[in-house]
Amino acid sequence: MSPETFYILPEKQHNTLVTAAYRHRGFTNAESEQAANFAALASKHGIRTHNALKALHLDHLFGSGVGGCVPGAEIKKLDTRFASVEVWDAQRKLGQATALEAIDAGISLADKYGTGTISIDNAFHYLWGGGYVMEAAKRGYIAYTHCTAALTEVVPFQGKFPTLGTNPHSWGFPTVDAIGYPIVIDWATSVIAMGRVQQLAREGSRLPPNAAVDERGQPTTDPTQAKALLPFGAHKGYGLSLINEIVGAFIGAGLPTVRSRWNDQTSEEKKTPCFYFQIIHPEALSSGAFSKNRSQAENIGAILKDILGHGNEGCILPGQLEAEAAQKCDNAGGLLFTKAELEGFQNIARECGATPPDLSQLKKYK
Amino acid sequence: MSPETFYILPEKQHNTLVTAAYRHRGFTNAESEQAANFAALASKHGIRTHNALKALHLDHLFGSGVGGCVPGAEIKKLDTRFASVEVWDAQRKLGQATALEAIDAGISLADKYGTGTISIDNAFHYLWGGGYVMEAAKRGYIAYTHCTAALTEVVPFQGKFPTLGTNPHSWGFPTVDAIGYPIVIDWATSVIAMGRVQQLAREGSRLPPNAAVDERGQPTTDPTQAKALLPFGAHKGYGLSLINEIVGAFIGAGLPTVRSRWNDQTSEEKKTPCFYFQIIHPEALSSGAFSKNRSQAENIGAILKDILGHGNEGCILPGQLEAEAAQKCDNAGGLLFTKAELEGFQNIARECGATPPDLSQLKKYK
Repeated sequence: MSPETFYILPEKQHNTLVTAAYRHRGFTNAESEQAANFAALASKHGIRTHNALKALHLDHLFGSGVGGCVPGAEIKKLDTRFASVEVWDAQRKLGQATALEAIDAGISLADKYGTGTISIDNAFHYLWGGGYVMEAAKRGYIAYTHCTAALTEVVPFQGKFPTLGTNPHSWGFPTVDAIGYPIVIDWATSVIAMGRVQQLAREGSRLPPNAAVDERGQPTTDPTQAKALLPFGAHKGYGLSLINEIVGAFIGAGLPTVRSRWNDQTSEEKKTPCFYFQIIHPEALSSGAFSKNRSQAENIGAILKDILGHGNEGCILPGQLEAEAAQKCDNAGGLLFTKAELEGFQNIARECGATPPDLSQLKKYK
Repeated sequence: MSPETFYILPEKQHNTLVTAAYRHRGFTNAESEQAANFAALASKHGIRTHNALKALHLDHLFGSGVGGCVPGAEIKKLDTRFASVEVWDAQRKLGQATALEAIDAGISLADKYGTGTISIDNAFHYLWGGGYVMEAAKRGYIAYTHCTAALTEVVPFQGKFPTLGTNPHSWGFPTVDAIGYPIVIDWATSVIAMGRVQQLAREGSRLPPNAAVDERGQPTTDPTQAKALLPFGAHKGYGLSLINEIVGAFIGAGLPTVRSRWNDQTSEEKKTPCFYFQIIHPEALSSGAFSKNRSQAENIGAILKDILGHGNEGCILPGQLEAEAAQKCDNAGGLLFTKAELEGFQNIARECGATPPDLSQLKKYK
């Protein structure tokens, strides 16, 4: 973490304020509390890019502010002849509420059939995919999700114009018994995020190579010239980004380049993202025949120890930093925010008439 | 394709020879024909790294030559309480036969439940994951497979010692109606293959940056110094490689670093790879509500056209090169092999007492 000063905001105070902000925008009590809890989960795990401030900002830009998200919307569960899947029309319901419900539904299916798959059409941005699969993993399930990102900011491999979202993938594994925390693999398919490009431009720094292109579609390391992002790993990241668009196409998506462009009144294309969730019951994978009579959890522990042995002891596992951040918050007795972030919360409090956090009353984290 | 000369080997002649070679090693007629057909599929689609020569060589090194593969083995389907999954003990059956049967079984489950998942313990190398998902996609299904690669050749992100396989992932999508061929996304999670390192060493060329490490675990671009490979995309490819090891750990794998090391008699660890397959019925994802009343296939076509429009017309889709290679073989009336490859087939013919291909009788491809 940077050498910045962090203040400790009690989780309850955070949640009360964020719930009030969502209520003020017309969301139901249940939705507002889900949004607040999920923002707390992100902040607790050190996911500063997807905290409550970002969630409320995205809702303003693409959500309830412009019609991309509809407070109080009811999810419609569509008829299907397939027993282990569900297909939902989210009717633009709050993304966090939709995704949390999808995890519950996927777990119910996985308990019965071994796996559960939930495809969701007409969705709204779910923010941090890693949070949903982490929750499922803590409950003992393997989970996977991907979605089509709000805007097309990424250029196909060897292309010039952004026609793909940053399209993230998130996997969670129930490894708490094996190593103390769930493994969570969670990233976007661009080299970096557009927010990072803007940050580097403000700081006068350069971009890494092959991260962005200029307006002519040529690679650039000058963040002020960057107009679009490149997929990570050349054709491999391109393939991973395509998966989200193709699965979205099977579900019900409209053309990628008009997605979330609610100001464009001319297009008859659907503008909503799609979500895809899959849950697997870990027993449904097991042959039951582990070396040296290990249990499944012991086998996972032994294999991870082998991978991080032999001179690799300095490596970390995906999800480890998030687990350490959560431990730090538990020790501190609250969520950690910078002064600038707390000023953001003060603005939010003013927007909805709630009590703003008082920095002079908050403990500093050292 | 390189400016090398290619000869046209009729597929029937290829299959007769390869079947004889597998029969000679003790495989059943059915296994031998499956191996031959699958090798023809790889060669037809331009997958020169996984043709019959490579398949027979791997069988010699890690398979029936040393006990890693057992000709005529029977797959044991284990009991499970979960309806949409199967767990198999392959008992080291030929990988191609096992994988082709898994695709069939996954399709049967997907027809009934929407998705079908097959986890396979005690497996043997299945060679080209892209071939199985391509077959499923041509039959109209979404398919995904991954496996633990034979040897640990890849160093974890920020590590020094190879404890991960090159662990490939393969996805196939039924896009024939939309664009004329199935989209197949298929690659290993290392930047390059060890075979490519050896080829660059022979040619006196350099490695790309961040592709390999030397014996001290330091990145090197000198192929003669390269001792292990690096994952593509830093922590992202590392995460993807971990997935195969973790899923293998849930299924029943032993420690990665002893995998396929059949000469090591001291370890009580299982040495076999694991396979994971998943099939999805495309109708099981569909909301049925596509923009402008498009069908699902029309929607996929429209979305892919949008992605490869706007100046991206020069980009290719994953699976396109394979489809073009297959078209070329269809036009030529046979599979295309170099002189060196045909000499390999002549050696195989001598090994099993079959008629070797006679270069003077084969047409050249121009």
